[in-house]
Amino acid sequence: MKNSPANFASDNTAPVVPEIMDAISAANMGQASPYGADDLSKGLGPLFSELFETEVAVFPLATGTAANALSLAMLAPPYGAIYCHENAHIEEDECGAPEFYTGAKLVPMAGDHGRLAAGDLTERLEGLPLGFEHHVQPAAISLSQATESGTSYRPEDVAAIAAVAERFDLGLHVDGARFANSLAFLDCAPADITWRAGVDVLSFGATKNGGLAAEAIVFFKPELADTFKYRRKRGGHLISKMRDVSAQLDAYVRDGLWLRLAGNANAMAQRLSTGLAAVPGVKIVHPVEANEIFPRIPEPIIVGLVAQGFGFQRWGGSNSTVLRLVTAFNTTEEEVDGLVNAAAQLAAEAAE
Amino acid sequence: MKNSPANFASDNTAPVVPEIMDAISAANMGQASPYGADDLSKGLGPLFSELFETEVAVFPLATGTAANALSLAMLAPPYGAIYCHENAHIEEDECGAPEFYTGAKLVPMAGDHGRLAAGDLTERLEGLPLGFEHHVQPAAISLSQATESGTSYRPEDVAAIAAVAERFDLGLHVDGARFANSLAFLDCAPADITWRAGVDVLSFGATKNGGLAAEAIVFFKPELADTFKYRRKRGGHLISKMRDVSAQLDAYVRDGLWLRLAGNANAMAQRLSTGLAAVPGVKIVHPVEANEIFPRIPEPIIVGLVAQGFGFQRWGGSNSTVLRLVTAFNTTEEEVDGLVNAAAQLAAEAAE
Amino acid sequence: MKNSPANFASDNTAPVVPEIMDAISAANMGQASPYGADDLSKGLGPLFSELFETEVAVFPLATGTAANALSLAMLAPPYGAIYCHENAHIEEDECGAPEFYTGAKLVPMAGDHGRLAAGDLTERLEGLPLGFEHHVQPAAISLSQATESGTSYRPEDVAAIAAVAERFDLGLHVDGARFANSLAFLDCAPADITWRAGVDVLSFGATKNGGLAAEAIVFFKPELADTFKYRRKRGGHLISKMRDVSAQLDAYVRDGLWLRLAGNANAMAQRLSTGLAAVPGVKIVHPVEANEIFPRIPEPIIVGLVAQGFGFQRWGGSNSTVLRLVTAFNTTEEEVDGLVNAAAQLAAEAAE
Amino acid sequence: MKNSPANFASDNTAPVVPEIMDAISAANMGQASPYGADDLSKGLGPLFSELFETEVAVFPLATGTAANALSLAMLAPPYGAIYCHENAHIEEDECGAPEFYTGAKLVPMAGDHGRLAAGDLTERLEGLPLGFEHHVQPAAISLSQATESGTSYRPEDVAAIAAVAERFDLGLHVDGARFANSLAFLDCAPADITWRAGVDVLSFGATKNGGLAAEAIVFFKPELADTFKYRRKRGGHLISKMRDVSAQLDAYVRDGLWLRLAGNANAMAQRLSTGLAAVPGVKIVHPVEANEIFPRIPEPIIVGLVAQGFGFQRWGGSNSTVLRLVTAFNTTEEEVDGLVNAAAQLAAEAAE
Repeated sequence: MKNSPANFASDNTAPVVPEIMDAISAANMGQASPYGADDLSKGLGPLFSELFETEVAVFPLATGTAANALSLAMLAPPYGAIYCHENAHIEEDECGAPEFYTGAKLVPMAGDHGRLAAGDLTERLEGLPLGFEHHVQPAAISLSQATESGTSYRPEDVAAIAAVAERFDLGLHVDGARFANSLAFLDCAPADITWRAGVDVLSFGATKNGGLAAEAIVFFKPELADTFKYRRKRGGHLISKMRDVSAQLDAYVRDGLWLRLAGNANAMAQRLSTGLAAVPGVKIVHPVEANEIFPRIPEPIIVGLVAQGFGFQRWGGSNSTVLRLVTAFNTTEEEVDGLVNAAAQLAAEAAE
Repeated sequence: MKNSPANFASDNTAPVVPEIMDAISAANMGQASPYGADDLSKGLGPLFSELFETEVAVFPLATGTAANALSLAMLAPPYGAIYCHENAHIEEDECGAPEFYTGAKLVPMAGDHGRLAAGDLTERLEGLPLGFEHHVQPAAISLSQATESGTSYRPEDVAAIAAVAERFDLGLHVDGARFANSLAFLDCAPADITWRAGVDVLSFGATKNGGLAAEAIVFFKPELADTFKYRRKRGGHLISKMRDVSAQLDAYVRDGLWLRLAGNANAMAQRLSTGLAAVPGVKIVHPVEANEIFPRIPEPIIVGLVAQGFGFQRWGGSNSTVLRLVTAFNTTEEEVDGLVNAAAQLAAEAAE
Repeated sequence: MKNSPANFASDNTAPVVPEIMDAISAANMGQASPYGADDLSKGLGPLFSELFETEVAVFPLATGTAANALSLAMLAPPYGAIYCHENAHIEEDECGAPEFYTGAKLVPMAGDHGRLAAGDLTERLEGLPLGFEHHVQPAAISLSQATESGTSYRPEDVAAIAAVAERFDLGLHVDGARFANSLAFLDCAPADITWRAGVDVLSFGATKNGGLAAEAIVFFKPELADTFKYRRKRGGHLISKMRDVSAQLDAYVRDGLWLRLAGNANAMAQRLSTGLAAVPGVKIVHPVEANEIFPRIPEPIIVGLVAQGFGFQRWGGSNSTVLRLVTAFNTTEEEVDGLVNAAAQLAAEAAE
Repeated sequence: MKNSPANFASDNTAPVVPEIMDAISAANMGQASPYGADDLSKGLGPLFSELFETEVAVFPLATGTAANALSLAMLAPPYGAIYCHENAHIEEDECGAPEFYTGAKLVPMAGDHGRLAAGDLTERLEGLPLGFEHHVQPAAISLSQATESGTSYRPEDVAAIAAVAERFDLGLHVDGARFANSLAFLDCAPADITWRAGVDVLSFGATKNGGLAAEAIVFFKPELADTFKYRRKRGGHLISKMRDVSAQLDAYVRDGLWLRLAGNANAMAQRLSTGLAAVPGVKIVHPVEANEIFPRIPEPIIVGLVAQGFGFQRWGGSNSTVLRLVTAFNTTEEEVDGLVNAAAQLAAEAAE
């Protein structure tokens, strides 16, 4: 199958990593109490508390959209405003799920390379009529880590935004659908870019990085989760055989599996970025700080790659020449080099 | 492990049946398009259309609560009323999920052995001020098949209720969390107790009967599902690696697996019922027409069974002497006989 | 216009009482700050605090449905349950407004003469799985004062229910659409059947008793209202020229106008009840403790009254022979006697 | 009271115009059926149909926020997107009411002088992934007439936007809180800037232009209103003594009262604009096409005007030197000249 063109359309196209599939199978020996009363589910609290070096409340879920929407529902009242990047997944790609679960209003803001800036948030919030009942009331800020542009917030970036959140008494949420990729890129402790930097709640993703259907909400202030279980059930997100989700999360974080998987995806992204950057006419649009690459590529090369069967998305509309290429835990050097070489060859042909 | 006391608390305590676990593993070979664009997911429409002998629209989901709430959202407007049994899962056990997704009001009604009666519905609906804006407007009827009392509606029962629904222009929904058990008990075609009898939408359950986390909504009038996909995503119920849910549903209905599994559960329920009915002082409260048994048992026997480690729930409150015993696809004759013998022995001791 | 048959269909058919119309006109001299920043609106807090002999937070509104729905939204979370009488206005006559504003579930309960009984509430609540996420969580009790059957809760009745509310940590709401009528009947202080008896929030009605469109929510624990203003605006219930609503409320309670108006309505109800009770074949179904009378009347007499042009509603369906007759602040002895005499004559004719 | 400094803060500070107050009083003679079954309310349909030269469905309401939110609820599903100007009242000043009633997402867009441009809408809509369930689906466009910048859309502006709406199958709503002012400015028929230009639904305001609390929703396609009455009641917006609101609307549009009132407000706005434009250092920011003026004024002059007791709002934040001045039906030349002269004098003093 050498040279078969690879699919970089999404990390959701990857299969389940064998370690996680084995964990599900192992979890299915004999009977177990449903709805989270099984041993694996009960063990997630201690396990994630150790991982994050603080006591957390953790809840398994099957989708990232549910994780985001339910997280935000614990931070924002129906008359609240949630500040996020204008390209954020919660704003653009969840069909209004955050609004459905919170009743609140998402306020999209611009920001370079997918990142919100503390200064922009301060300016926006200082201009608001706080306590004025005609206007929705600021309630939360939501960051994406990694961002929708494949960049990562440094601990000091998060801390600067958390300072704004604290000043205006807002909750701070992180959409961590690709949290492992940012963590592997930043090479810091999980605590450093979450609670130590001022994050209240994290949507902790595993599905895109080798899981079957496993996400978790991690509350760094466990009291924020006091009534969470009712909202989860009310949303239809309480899994009956929860051991099967918990087993995925357990296997995912044990022995550093998640970071090894993310590490491969990141390395392949760097290799892809470096390779494409050397192709004449190609420009990498955003810093590559996780497992997504956004190159601007001459149209003839794009057409050529599509013709050869490579998979990816045009980003920002069907005529865009900026592509989004996503690497995954199982992306190989051969797959990366295959695309780079094809692009280089197409560029050479075009130059003739 | 002979004589180890069995757990009849719920069919959710059972593991995944091996055939379904194998199907998930098989589905995880290589890449696949996410969000339902994979081959397994695309095959569900034809597969379920054949199964139900009519063209259906079918959507996989991870929980039964989501299946019920989203089904009803396609039938009832926010100012609507949904008629259901007062013990229905949607009324008692979903923390308001149907109201969250529909905005509508559930109207609980009494009925023998967990079943709604067509005559009661007619009487209720005839007494309503239709078109009167001060009152919520009748929109749908929801039945449970099997019911929360372990009984099943016959095709003619469903048809009688469907006639009421048609007269008053209401949608007819069936919560089929234990649909396979009713079907196996009634020994009829799936079509006979659904669309042929007038059902519009079915919450088709697989999780309680051997699945990992697999339910489906089956629309017998596909046009009812026109905007379903938006509501599913908005609820956070669009699974990214959908092939893993679709694989479960595919394996579940292929080659009659689902009916074999339900058949075992039902047979064990009958054996348990027959055995317990012969124990002095025990009375079976509801006809056993699926995989649940509701015996009234003298308190000393209950205490003795608990002391020996048997698992079950008291039904209707913590002091109730009516128990709910649930059998599953993997319940064995030894487990059933173990409980019956223990009860008989306790009864004999009590009589001394 | 002597002997013109009167209309007892509803107290909403009455016009605005002149004192209140004059107050609106007077309030309209010159400019005033909108949205409640005018002097009349700012004066309502002190005025109602004096009236209720405790510090209250008070908010004017234009409809009773808004008052009920918004009150309950301050007491119940979306996963909450609100216990009310099965005939309560919030359950039967508001098209789901309480559910829209709260997200919570109304739980209808039976009770003699429109009243909830403390014992029934205790029994219901003791049987619930508190803290069990599959079930909506008890959040509030709502009473109607006067009830939909024209009866009134005594202070000790309210206190007994408040004790249940306190035991289970529930809010206690009173729908006081006809609060003045109950108060005039009971002849006690407003405080005695509200906060002194344990009520948290009152929907204080004025429209049915001489107002144009004026209701108020009175919070006896002002901290319950902390975020009320946002929910009111979000519901579209913040009146811009609020002075015009506040003027109505101000005039309504000043110098005892409200109790004089209610006193007339009540006296006419007693006169009507006494008169009808003496008509052969007529039976008064509920105690008359406010301004509504529910007589069971032989069908031929009903038909005769309708033919003569009297206005009223059949209660409980279009074939019911129980009528609801409502008196108002402007009902006259002549109007009452006209109906009584007509009924007596029809009865005499029927007996011949 | 000569020379008393006038208040230009809002048209909501004005009293009720005498003609409307008289109409309310007149409506209150004797009994009338509640909830819109009275003669005045029933007459609104024919009256507004004549006014708009087409058959319309019309519903009275007490607030503009309710009118907007309920209008939009008839156009947009919960997973819908509603396009509006970034300064629109529905986006900025209704505390999320449109989202509460619709469930949909408001998409704010930039546009000169408060106006949306058809070209911008086309560009935005062409870039969207229509039918893609991850994204909310375009459902409606909402314009403000007059805009929040005091400008008016010409018939051809509305028609151009309506063409976009038609192309993408969107509803077209107009927030007409100051509809009379635009109409008076444009000097065209009501039909010309509504249904003839492609508008589906109009929030027809009367409160800001002399009413007490009277708005109406006008559906130009009556079938759009089929289920409106249920949503109105569910929102708590069905006024029981509706004759008192209908009387206001009736008086408002009879004999051209509304246009005479708006004409005065507009004339005073023009006079104020002309006067201020002549003051050194003052610049009028937006064209004056209704009853609002937005001048940029040197800070010392603002400070001086505030010190003298003039009322107005700084626009766009507490440090802004752009003011919003609103004239009303009862604004006088003396009041306008008083402010202009004071500003001129302050400018002269500053120049010394």
